[in-house]
Amino acid sequence: MGLCLGYTKPILVLRRLAVSVDITLTTDFGTRDGFVAQMKGVILGINPSARLIDVTHDIRPFAVLEGALVLKGIARYFPIGTIHVAVVDPGVGSNRRCIAVSAEGRIYVGPDNGLVSLVMSPAAKVEVREIRNPEFMLPEVHPSFHGRDIFAAVAAHLSLGTPIHLVGPLVDDPVRLAIPAVLRTTEGLQGEVIYSDRFGNLSTNVEANMLDRSVQEIVCGDVRLPGIKRYFQEVPEGTPLALLNSFGLLEIAVNRGDASAILGIRIGDRVAVTWEHLD
Amino acid sequence: MGLCLGYTKPILVLRRLAVSVDITLTTDFGTRDGFVAQMKGVILGINPSARLIDVTHDIRPFAVLEGALVLKGIARYFPIGTIHVAVVDPGVGSNRRCIAVSAEGRIYVGPDNGLVSLVMSPAAKVEVREIRNPEFMLPEVHPSFHGRDIFAAVAAHLSLGTPIHLVGPLVDDPVRLAIPAVLRTTEGLQGEVIYSDRFGNLSTNVEANMLDRSVQEIVCGDVRLPGIKRYFQEVPEGTPLALLNSFGLLEIAVNRGDASAILGIRIGDRVAVTWEHLD
Amino acid sequence: MGLCLGYTKPILVLRRLAVSVDITLTTDFGTRDGFVAQMKGVILGINPSARLIDVTHDIRPFAVLEGALVLKGIARYFPIGTIHVAVVDPGVGSNRRCIAVSAEGRIYVGPDNGLVSLVMSPAAKVEVREIRNPEFMLPEVHPSFHGRDIFAAVAAHLSLGTPIHLVGPLVDDPVRLAIPAVLRTTEGLQGEVIYSDRFGNLSTNVEANMLDRSVQEIVCGDVRLPGIKRYFQEVPEGTPLALLNSFGLLEIAVNRGDASAILGIRIGDRVAVTWEHLD
Repeated sequence: MGLCLGYTKPILVLRRLAVSVDITLTTDFGTRDGFVAQMKGVILGINPSARLIDVTHDIRPFAVLEGALVLKGIARYFPIGTIHVAVVDPGVGSNRRCIAVSAEGRIYVGPDNGLVSLVMSPAAKVEVREIRNPEFMLPEVHPSFHGRDIFAAVAAHLSLGTPIHLVGPLVDDPVRLAIPAVLRTTEGLQGEVIYSDRFGNLSTNVEANMLDRSVQEIVCGDVRLPGIKRYFQEVPEGTPLALLNSFGLLEIAVNRGDASAILGIRIGDRVAVTWEHLD
Repeated sequence: MGLCLGYTKPILVLRRLAVSVDITLTTDFGTRDGFVAQMKGVILGINPSARLIDVTHDIRPFAVLEGALVLKGIARYFPIGTIHVAVVDPGVGSNRRCIAVSAEGRIYVGPDNGLVSLVMSPAAKVEVREIRNPEFMLPEVHPSFHGRDIFAAVAAHLSLGTPIHLVGPLVDDPVRLAIPAVLRTTEGLQGEVIYSDRFGNLSTNVEANMLDRSVQEIVCGDVRLPGIKRYFQEVPEGTPLALLNSFGLLEIAVNRGDASAILGIRIGDRVAVTWEHLD
Repeated sequence: MGLCLGYTKPILVLRRLAVSVDITLTTDFGTRDGFVAQMKGVILGINPSARLIDVTHDIRPFAVLEGALVLKGIARYFPIGTIHVAVVDPGVGSNRRCIAVSAEGRIYVGPDNGLVSLVMSPAAKVEVREIRNPEFMLPEVHPSFHGRDIFAAVAAHLSLGTPIHLVGPLVDDPVRLAIPAVLRTTEGLQGEVIYSDRFGNLSTNVEANMLDRSVQEIVCGDVRLPGIKRYFQEVPEGTPLALLNSFGLLEIAVNRGDASAILGIRIGDRVAVTWEHLD
């Protein structure tokens, strides 16, 4: 027994080194004030082997849908076992729930306001737990900073191998965000702009697999685009184009320009796709 | 002896892997120009096992007090043994000293301009050393980039276990920043706004433990707030409130809004707290 | 043989832990949208031991020369063996080549548009390969996101020890950016401003080693500066000065001020250095 212990300990040390779970962070906290660093300190204090990856801290303040879209965009690029912490949380301190979600091999930790709902595809097996167990929170939870005192701490404990069911009871009605639906007519599709990226490229809610007929035109405001290009440089500099972006969505862009600024298009603006007439 | 060496070497390798010290970085260097990356390259060149954590590089240029407040805010969330590098350094190259500070189990490295002074509480045992030993600097020190050529290099050497006393002589008069004092009257407290965060929330210098009587009103400019709330959503959207923030300071905020912009309040503006009359 | 295997496996595990290659990232992707995080997820999925270092994601959109200057500035501060990924890529998806470059012990991965050309000094032994082998790319390459689907994936494979010649054929005519040349006259030097940093400090193309005579004056627009200072605080606050910056370039700055804004100087503006008359 004594001998066994003698051999076991170094092996445990090795395992800890080896099991370095990735924890990503997606917030609207900005980078100026040290809020994110406080979360990182909490995580590393609980699990010194965790590896931290910043997704973004530049979600517009309180823009839950924007955060949810970014999170959905990045989630599947990280290995199975990754823990994604997301905090865009205007209701912090109120009675909105805190949740931990297991879906498709990754774990998501954040407020129950829809932020982590776009990664819960209806098809996939999803387990949602309300975070209630104070054992996995900091001893003092500040009512305006659950990101640090609850979400970071819980994520760190989960990264150490704590089973998710220990954080609290099952939730069967997590808040789900709705991306506006695309309307399908005999003429084509009626969608809208749902996201504008750093370059001013405009993502719509029209998914690549909805474009199952030959496209004649894409119309948004005053802009009429003849069909879908593959990449920016297929049109001259400063010219608008439509393409399928890396999220698999129809996008309106300007080659080497800021489409949002140049075309005056904003989130919520309507986009019409018309099919080619076959007469 | 030969055999012993044969066994010792791999164990040393393991120890190096295990002793991965955290080094945090707090600067006003921004993220555009690669200055911070140069510091990181220097650190990893000296200690390949160091783990780097960005606190912020968005301190306003030359805003030493702002940097000091952020550093104080994050420091205690990191584990004992963490090395915090901080560089907001308008006097770089002049005769202001470079210092390394040991306080409450963490080490701080930066210019002696008050930036690391708020973490030196009068109560705690603090050791301040002037960085003089060129052995721990880069061979060529550029007069306008001590962040890279002195502070990063010294932090990396300290993270390898170099005892702090080797960097240079004791300093008994480090520059200390003063946070403006709160005035206490029979009517209440007279404080001021000392920090505005990314959301526009306004931190005052009034600490939670100063609020030892029942508060009737908080007044700042034209804004009169009836008492202290616990979290943002206790008031309707767009409404101002006072609360105790996660730094333990009295804060003026607007639910889902930018208090600084909406209320026109700035750093330095006076804040009055009045006690309830008990007559 | 069986026994040998029994010993070999744990050693392999240790080697993987030990061989943690640094991969740096320099892009114009910004930090809002999760593009960089997607790249990081791809890298960590291929090489879980890679260590990721953000250089900057705030290169101005499509500003290839700016990215090239930042990359050149940071490259030599990272240890031999570092892999630098750089993506400022307005031509993504077109027929511009993708390249991997081995130069002075580091590897560079990015588009062949000059972005990684400033690190290829004519003197150094440089190997440039066109990335063609689909084995090292993601299975589906999106035409507008080579950063993720090609560059990140290739860098991760190279960090695992894949020899660079496997990525594709030699390139003998990589695109090279030209930094504007400095004109040397009997009176002095004619250069120009090539970079403005986060503080508004203005880098010129005049290198320290070109200043081989005694300087009488530096002139840029309306600004006349008498000689070269060593550090900012040699002049009063708000006063312009010339100094040699940490890139080894002549710089025009303002002590504690934003020289670009205060002096109205921009990238491309002419700078004249006049030698002292020895009569």
